[in-house]
Parts: sequence; C-alpha cells; structure tokens
Amino acid sequence: MTTLKPGSTIGILGGGQLGRMLSLAAAPLGYKCKIYCPDDNSPAFQVSDSYIIAPYEDKKALMDFADSVDVITYEFENIPVETANEIATHTSLYPSAKALEISQDRLTEKNFLNSINATTAPYAIIETEKDLAEAVENIGLPAILKTRRFGYDGKGQVAIKHTKDIPDAFNALKGAPAILEGFIDFTREISVVVARSKTGEVRCYPTCENIHRNHILDETLVPAHISESLQAKAENTAQKIAGELGYVGVMAVEMFVTNDETGLIVNEFAPRVHNSGHWTQDGAITSQFEQHIRAIAGLPLGATDLLGKVRMKNLVGTTDAEAQAHLKDASAHLHLYGKSETRAGRKMGHVTWVRKD
Amino acid sequence: MTTLKPGSTIGILGGGQLGRMLSLAAAPLGYKCKIYCPDDNSPAFQVSDSYIIAPYEDKKALMDFADSVDVITYEFENIPVETANEIATHTSLYPSAKALEISQDRLTEKNFLNSINATTAPYAIIETEKDLAEAVENIGLPAILKTRRFGYDGKGQVAIKHTKDIPDAFNALKGAPAILEGFIDFTREISVVVARSKTGEVRCYPTCENIHRNHILDETLVPAHISESLQAKAENTAQKIAGELGYVGVMAVEMFVTNDETGLIVNEFAPRVHNSGHWTQDGAITSQFEQHIRAIAGLPLGATDLLGKVRMKNLVGTTDAEAQAHLKDASAHLHLYGKSETRAGRKMGHVTWVRKD
Repeated sequence: MTTLKPGSTIGILGGGQLGRMLSLAAAPLGYKCKIYCPDDNSPAFQVSDSYIIAPYEDKKALMDFADSVDVITYEFENIPVETANEIATHTSLYPSAKALEISQDRLTEKNFLNSINATTAPYAIIETEKDLAEAVENIGLPAILKTRRFGYDGKGQVAIKHTKDIPDAFNALKGAPAILEGFIDFTREISVVVARSKTGEVRCYPTCENIHRNHILDETLVPAHISESLQAKAENTAQKIAGELGYVGVMAVEMFVTNDETGLIVNEFAPRVHNSGHWTQDGAITSQFEQHIRAIAGLPLGATDLLGKVRMKNLVGTTDAEAQAHLKDASAHLHLYGKSETRAGRKMGHVTWVRKD
Repeated sequence: MTTLKPGSTIGILGGGQLGRMLSLAAAPLGYKCKIYCPDDNSPAFQVSDSYIIAPYEDKKALMDFADSVDVITYEFENIPVETANEIATHTSLYPSAKALEISQDRLTEKNFLNSINATTAPYAIIETEKDLAEAVENIGLPAILKTRRFGYDGKGQVAIKHTKDIPDAFNALKGAPAILEGFIDFTREISVVVARSKTGEVRCYPTCENIHRNHILDETLVPAHISESLQAKAENTAQKIAGELGYVGVMAVEMFVTNDETGLIVNEFAPRVHNSGHWTQDGAITSQFEQHIRAIAGLPLGATDLLGKVRMKNLVGTTDAEAQAHLKDASAHLHLYGKSETRAGRKMGHVTWVRKD
C-alpha cells in the first residue's frame, strides 16, 4: 500500500465547509490542500495552501488541477462520473467514481442497496405520468416523487397524498428522471458514519440520531436512542455498503428506524464526509475529516470511540452575534464556516457539546 | 468590550508551528489569518488566508501589515519592543508590548517576578568579568551564566562548576549582557499555561510536567505528579503574573519543583502559546491555541478541563516514516508542522495520547 508522504498535496473538489474542514484536518497529518471550486471567496480557500477558481465543466482546468496534486478527493457527490473517470486516469481519486456513480442516481442507489439485501422503501422508476399513476397504485399513498439526481436537503421532492395530486406532482419535476418512493412511517432518523481504508480496514462511528427541521439537519445526538441490537444492525449495514463498493474514505449511510423500533430502512448514502458526522470533531477520538484524510492517504484509520454524550446543532441562517453567543457556555465548541454572508436556510456553522455524564 | 466579528482578519507575526496552529484554531471561530514572516515556505502559510514575506526590520512592511488586519498577535517573544509599540499605534496588539518587554530580558523578568513575590533562583547582573567573579562568590557554585536576551532551548547559557571556569564562561558570551543564576536543585520541571481575557477572566490549564532532553522539551505529562497544594500554588503564581501584567492571551509559566516537593521556583514565562501546552489540542476541552484566539478576539474563555491522562511527545529531528509510524496506535494524535526538511534538533511535530484510566 502506498502511503502519502507528509508534504504531499491533496486536491479537493469543492470549496465549501466540508472542503474547509477536510483541509483543517489534513494539516496536522502534514499534508497541504489545494482546492478546486468555481466560487471565488470559497470557505475552504481561507485555510488551504492553494486553490483554483474554475467551473466544474472546464475539463482542461480540471486535468491541470489533477496533474498538480498527489491525490484527489471531493466534498460533494454531484461530479459527473465521466469527469471523475477522466480525473482518475491522471491522479488517484478516492472515493472511486463507482461510489459516485451509484449514489448520484436514486434508482441505481436503491437497486444496489437491494442487491446487497439492505432494506429500502418500496420504489418504482417514473418516466411518464402513466408510470406514476401505476406506481401509486402499486406502492400506495402517501408517497414521495423524487428526482433521480441532484436532490439534497429536501430539494427535488414532491409529496403525493391523493391520486388527484398526480398530474401536478409529475409536472413539477419538469421531465427530470424520477422515482416514486413509498412513504416510510418511522420513529427516528439515524445515520452511521463509516470509514474504509485502502487495506480494507473498516471502522464505524457510533450511530447518530438526526433531527431535521425544514428538510435540513438541525441536530445530531450521539449515542442514538436505539437498542444495542439495532445499533449493531445499522453498523453492519454501513460496513456492508462500504465493503461491497470497495470504498476508500468516509461515507454516511442514512437510515430510518421503523415504528416498532426493530427495523431499519436505508434511505441513502453519501460518498463523503457528512453533516451528521460533524460531532466527531469534538466528540470522538478521531474526527470524520481526519479519518477521511487518513483513508485516502493510505494511513491506518484512527479510533472512533465516543468521548461522552454528544449534541451537535447546526447554525442555519445564524448571525455572527447569535453564533458567538454560544461561547458564553465555556464547554460549547463553535465551528464557523467562514461564509461572508448570512442567508436564511444557509448553513453558517455548527456547535457541539460533549457531556461526561 | 469589543468582540472581533467573524470574517475579521487576525495578523500573526511569525510563521512557524505556533503561528500555524493558531491559524488552524482561528478558523472554526470564523476568523481569517494573515501571517508575517521573513521565511518563504513558512509552515503557517499553508493554512492561512494570506501572508507577507518580509524581514522583521522592515518597518514599512510591518506597518502596512498592521493596517491590513483587525488585530495582531505573535508567536515568538523576540519582537523588538520599539517595533511592537509602533505596531500598537496602528492596530491592537495582544499580548501587549509590556509583556514582551519584561519577558525579553532575563534581568527585567526576574526583577518583575520578585516584585510580585514569586520566588526565582538567586541572580546577579553581569557586565564585567569582575562582576562575574563577585556574583560567583555571593551565589555559590554551580551556577549558570545566561545572556539576558534571545536565549531559548538552552542556547546562550554556560554552566560554571569551578571558579577556574569563570574567564572562559565570560568570554563565551562575547560581551552580551548577562546574568548569573544560582543552580536550582529540583526534582521536576512543571509549567502552567494560563489565559487571561480582555475582561480580566483568568483560566489555568492543569499543571503540566515537562521532561527535557538536550535542553529541548521532549515530553509533557498531565496531570503533573505533584500534590494538590503545589498545583494550587503553581496556578496562583501563573494567575498572579497574568493579572499583574494586565495580560491578554495565553502565556506559559515555567517552574521548578524544589527537592522537598513543596517549593516552587519560577524559571521564566513566555508571552505566547507554548510547547508545553500542545497537549491541550487533544487533552483539554479548549486548546491553548483556540484559547489564545478567544482572548485576543474579546470572546469568553473556553473550559480548560482535562479529558484524561495526557502524554505529549515532541518529534525532534523525526523523519516522515517515523512520524507516520505513530499512527499504528489508533488512539495517537499526530500533529506535523509542514516543514519541508528534517534536521537534527528541529521540531517536526508532536504526538499526544489521552488515556481514560
């Protein structure tokens, strides 16, 4: 196994808060980071050795970028697979284009999950309004129509409660490829952040419980309020996904806990560090960001033990003053993303608390 | 009290590992860092928003730097006081020039310490060889002749064991202003890292025990193996020094524990984050680097509670492979400084371990 030498440069596609926190975690391991992002004033630029401002569609700039770094990773999963494959012919890309390809499309993702016996919501491919009507008949209502690609934080989703909603729901997607998903009656949303190294070593963080508000993650609590057997089941599922993909890096697997608190439904996985793992910066021995860097650098994985009872709260649309007010609690850990403008619904940072009791 | 707004820029004089770790700690609080350092390829440049390469003697460059940032701090205490005072007329400087002035000169430092009833080694000012002979007579042997300025890691020091060594010792200093210090027979070297905020809030970290090798810090152990009453005495001394100076920021106070394990002799204090506080990155709720940034930014101080039994080991002259080998222990925290060249005696990084038992 090749180990990335200190002094090497890690290329990161994407300059948002995830790229920023990856860069902050790479430095203590001795690595420099170079960011590729179309947006000037990107949060990651502030803490990185160097950066390139260019569109993701600029093949020439991307390949020059690839040639100028020692390994490439990414902070978001919507890089075109064709581009990822081309990058990988220049420089090692982790996680691989395969993980991207599967996770980018809700249909491929659900097919993959079912192929490895992970339970998902019932689903059907929707290309025409007739498909949708038939799928509603088979799956039942309520159900959710989702675009196959580029959905996040509740975007690209329409709930269908009555058959009369079918035409409007179908039209709302404007012809984008879609699937219909059966509604899951769940008690909790949980996630497992899992890391897999180049040698196939796998380490899970303790299962997190996630509370959403307006379709955006609001709070993460660790440990999740679930039984030990369900926690083991969740971890096994995450490990299986990482293993079957031959994955290298950190990924997050989002799951629902069924009404009887014994079943798990896999919602989706994200082939990257994830908001529901931000608590690891203060609440675990190794942060998810350092863990990801260790994995893609060919280093051994770090310990994932919990340091206490953890609560992570996202700062969504929060002002500077509101963010700083958290520091009145001397045990609160503030993590701001260096975004110049506060906007409603924009993730500005997060706060974590770790309690010993 | 003015609080530095997120998005503001902190100027740091010095681009070594301390500037680098200050920069890494400033980012989660929402601040950008701009580094001033004469050396291109400085470790701090890799993780900072911007930097200036210019000599410390370049007044124009320094004042332009001061005008381009919102507050200034420093990673080393040998900035000329005159320069510090001039900078402070442009932009707020923390810690103040007063702390620099006192700590830069072993004579002024010892006079100050004695004026606030902190015990130091017996000492005498040495300007001539005759002064030295008289001081040896009064203080006794063995004793150590030290330059008043610019000494660190055992540099600028000559031990005197016999009166016949006096001429050679005096000549070795080449006319530099000096003091003679009586030899202290001690059992342990300890230090207290203390922070003081703009509002006068003071927080000490638990006392550290330091083990030196070849005059360079080798290991820090926390908690120190001393009685509770001695720990309280050490903390009180550090608090008193910070308070009397009207200090803002983090400082380290180095002390010796006398042979009977009940007495304390203050050796010196450093008006900056300090190697003996590096363990706080993994072993305390708030790291000394974040604490320093909080203090100079006018934010409340963070909690200094210990997270376990901590050991910090410096990586001195360590190769890349030796550094990475530490990661075979999944609980080890590696902190490399991004220095391109390994040299004997050069601090390349450090490792910490935090144990729960």
